[in-house]
Amino acid sequence: MNQEQRQEIYETARNWIYEAGAQIREHMNEPLGIEAKSNPNDLVTILDKQTEKFLVDRIHQTYPEHHIIGEEGFGDTLSNVDGTIWIIDPIDGTMNFIHQKRTFAISIGILHNGVGEIGFVYDVMDDILYHAKRGEGAFKNDIKLASLDKEKKLEEAIVGMNHFWLCNNKVVDYTVMQKFVRTIRGARTIGSAALELAHVAEGIQDAYLALSLAPWDVAGGIILNKEVGGIAGDADGNPWNPLERSPAVVANPAIYRSIIEFLKEGRK
Amino acid sequence: MNQEQRQEIYETARNWIYEAGAQIREHMNEPLGIEAKSNPNDLVTILDKQTEKFLVDRIHQTYPEHHIIGEEGFGDTLSNVDGTIWIIDPIDGTMNFIHQKRTFAISIGILHNGVGEIGFVYDVMDDILYHAKRGEGAFKNDIKLASLDKEKKLEEAIVGMNHFWLCNNKVVDYTVMQKFVRTIRGARTIGSAALELAHVAEGIQDAYLALSLAPWDVAGGIILNKEVGGIAGDADGNPWNPLERSPAVVANPAIYRSIIEFLKEGRK
Repeated sequence: MNQEQRQEIYETARNWIYEAGAQIREHMNEPLGIEAKSNPNDLVTILDKQTEKFLVDRIHQTYPEHHIIGEEGFGDTLSNVDGTIWIIDPIDGTMNFIHQKRTFAISIGILHNGVGEIGFVYDVMDDILYHAKRGEGAFKNDIKLASLDKEKKLEEAIVGMNHFWLCNNKVVDYTVMQKFVRTIRGARTIGSAALELAHVAEGIQDAYLALSLAPWDVAGGIILNKEVGGIAGDADGNPWNPLERSPAVVANPAIYRSIIEFLKEGRK
Repeated sequence: MNQEQRQEIYETARNWIYEAGAQIREHMNEPLGIEAKSNPNDLVTILDKQTEKFLVDRIHQTYPEHHIIGEEGFGDTLSNVDGTIWIIDPIDGTMNFIHQKRTFAISIGILHNGVGEIGFVYDVMDDILYHAKRGEGAFKNDIKLASLDKEKKLEEAIVGMNHFWLCNNKVVDYTVMQKFVRTIRGARTIGSAALELAHVAEGIQDAYLALSLAPWDVAGGIILNKEVGGIAGDADGNPWNPLERSPAVVANPAIYRSIIEFLKEGRK
């Protein structure tokens, strides 16, 4: 993908995201048709599905040769990362969307032959678009985000992580994570992986840890982070795999290794 | 305190809060003079102190007979709740203020003979003022907040609580809280008690639990909640005491008892 192609796809996607966000804001006070998916707290609404369908239809029409991975099932099943792949979460933070009517995002990451080319995280209610193109930096609306602070210490870090890290889980011994929570400056949980990743890229949070994330939760945010020096991997420090669900660690480069060392101590 | 007095004090306090918020926004990008208080993560800045002093000076000038409890030490030491008491947190969420430059609040609760009369929580960066007068309802800017949903179930509740509930602590066995986290729909931690209490009053979060809070963290938010049916107490379900630091539970009335029962099971 050359710069001209990247720019053209970026502009097209950005327009679709703004359009999709406006539709969500317009219809969010109508009945949401809430259903549970894998468990009673894994929720989906009509607007998750309509938004994904809106995006998928437009991609299919405009770029019939592109592939799509989407949360709500309108995309394709892929066995490799060849070609151009759009990875879409139409509403990341559906629980917030339902209960709070805010703090949720549209997340899109666009890869070409496995390389992240374009990333978006759109905070729909605050109308803040985080966006990045490979090699051209990351932005919050019109403001270019600075490179992440290379002097950051773990003891002064704000880390996004949900409370299940401190319950019995398959990834890591929770007593090690209790020590982790006592080591860092503060832990936060806002309920949208995509927004927390955008906040890592913005430098207002220094890491985001997730026990299990799907590609659509993180693709847009990981591409943003790459542009400011943020590092993304699984719980063992291996590079992110856009075709797999796995634990995820996205962090300021100065504390990434320390976090992986912590996890290693308690890794199951 | 009659309605006329309450209205006069309310309007005066509201003007001071807006003025204090504007000063914070104006000066927040200057050096903050960060210091640690009780521990390395208990932080205070020049603006915490200046904001409290601004408010305390004005209260002393205008209402010399009123008493003040303030986080940063410009207030009085009180042994009883007689008369009119202003309970002030100039910046609730100082860690957010420093690291994120957002998600912090000015919190003020005004009591008369121990009864909450006026409550404010001002989200400084989003310019959202939550406010309430006793018997007249609670508001988010100009919008009156609805009474809290009396049919809310614990299994569908969003609960604000920090990660230390799931570490060794003096209040409750953390294994019971692990069960609690698996019972509710979602746990959140945004880093400002005052804002989380305002979100309970708004109905976008259903409870807020804190292991240890000072009166200034909660006074404004508890008065807001009273107006929409929210219940506030300590970890044993005893009423809130505005002169003491204690664990705090503020919740939707439909789930308050269930939360207290949970805590009782693990109470130390």
